[in-house]
Amino acid sequence: MTFKLHNFFRSSSSVRLRAALNLKGLTYEYVPYVLRNGETRTPQFLAMNPAGLVPVLELEDGNYLSQSLAIIEWLEETHPQPPLLPHDPDSRARVRALAYMVACEVHPLNNLRVLGYIGTEFGANEAAQKAWFTHWVETTFDALETMLSVSDDTGAFCYRDTPTLADICLYAQVWNNRRFEIDMSRWPTIEGIFARLDALEPFRMAAPPAQPDAV
Amino acid sequence: MTFKLHNFFRSSSSVRLRAALNLKGLTYEYVPYVLRNGETRTPQFLAMNPAGLVPVLELEDGNYLSQSLAIIEWLEETHPQPPLLPHDPDSRARVRALAYMVACEVHPLNNLRVLGYIGTEFGANEAAQKAWFTHWVETTFDALETMLSVSDDTGAFCYRDTPTLADICLYAQVWNNRRFEIDMSRWPTIEGIFARLDALEPFRMAAPPAQPDAV
Repeated sequence: MTFKLHNFFRSSSSVRLRAALNLKGLTYEYVPYVLRNGETRTPQFLAMNPAGLVPVLELEDGNYLSQSLAIIEWLEETHPQPPLLPHDPDSRARVRALAYMVACEVHPLNNLRVLGYIGTEFGANEAAQKAWFTHWVETTFDALETMLSVSDDTGAFCYRDTPTLADICLYAQVWNNRRFEIDMSRWPTIEGIFARLDALEPFRMAAPPAQPDAV
Repeated sequence: MTFKLHNFFRSSSSVRLRAALNLKGLTYEYVPYVLRNGETRTPQFLAMNPAGLVPVLELEDGNYLSQSLAIIEWLEETHPQPPLLPHDPDSRARVRALAYMVACEVHPLNNLRVLGYIGTEFGANEAAQKAWFTHWVETTFDALETMLSVSDDTGAFCYRDTPTLADICLYAQVWNNRRFEIDMSRWPTIEGIFARLDALEPFRMAAPPAQPDAV
């Protein structure tokens, strides 16, 4: 199967999806869009995804999937090996909860369009945008650090010693944090997990600098 | 199995989880918390969920699950009937994408702690908070309306004629919209789906006014 990945090198949800595809050993054609130029607001793009957001995964049958976590669950169901979720329901719930803490509590508040809005509507300058960004990272990363550091389920990665959906979301967010040079030493468990993920080729090759449209 | 549901009547993610439990025919003990009083920031609550967020589902074995969507996936895996996701992967991806549009694009920006932050840090008064809230609802609901209105998969509900995870998220968000009296007539497809959901007892009984802590 050949996929077309409509995405942007720096987009955090694009990093997630690239990591998942790489971990599954799936290849894809890379189609880049420049968000700031409105390239995801064209009629052509909106026909693929009316929300005008990357990433979009174009399937061989012409179907378009959107929302990175929905696509990753689809990959898990259609290409189960290697698994990105544990087998038993309680562990799956734990991994998904860790993933959603990033995907539903941090990233939605810290993406480009929100930073743009607080700049335009509230006059937030670079320092105020950094304070906003940092506040929401710290709020959730403090809780994540606690959840990871106290649990016997935490290993080299968020859940034992094989990367899961939680690691995918965490890895993408830590890359995102670099936008505002967030000091990671406050969260030693997360920092260690990130370093181990970043040593793995499927993650490394999903990171922003490894993409053809990186600037 | 007996569940304890740690939650708050008006919380949108609590509405989601109550609807899922009701649709599955599962009973639960209702344990209310007043968010504004800091009742989810106590050592006792943080021991259940270090993020200090409702809802938390306490299982009979003493395990605590957090993050509403992770809990609902757990319910789907452990209590599969009636299903809240379609059977085939492409349809599941569509339903999850619709759900995550609400859960990852609207609700994270419009909950109490974010409204509090823009009030405190950016001096956003009630009118500015309403403009913020409305902006993020409109951004995603416009896309949702398009996705729902153009698709043959849309029926009485978001996906055909049986409620799914997408309806659960939509229903909770429309209730949340009432906080700022958002005019729903802009989205006739969504408005129609909401009305049909609201006529179903599992949804109606999950809504804020039906809860014991409603004020």
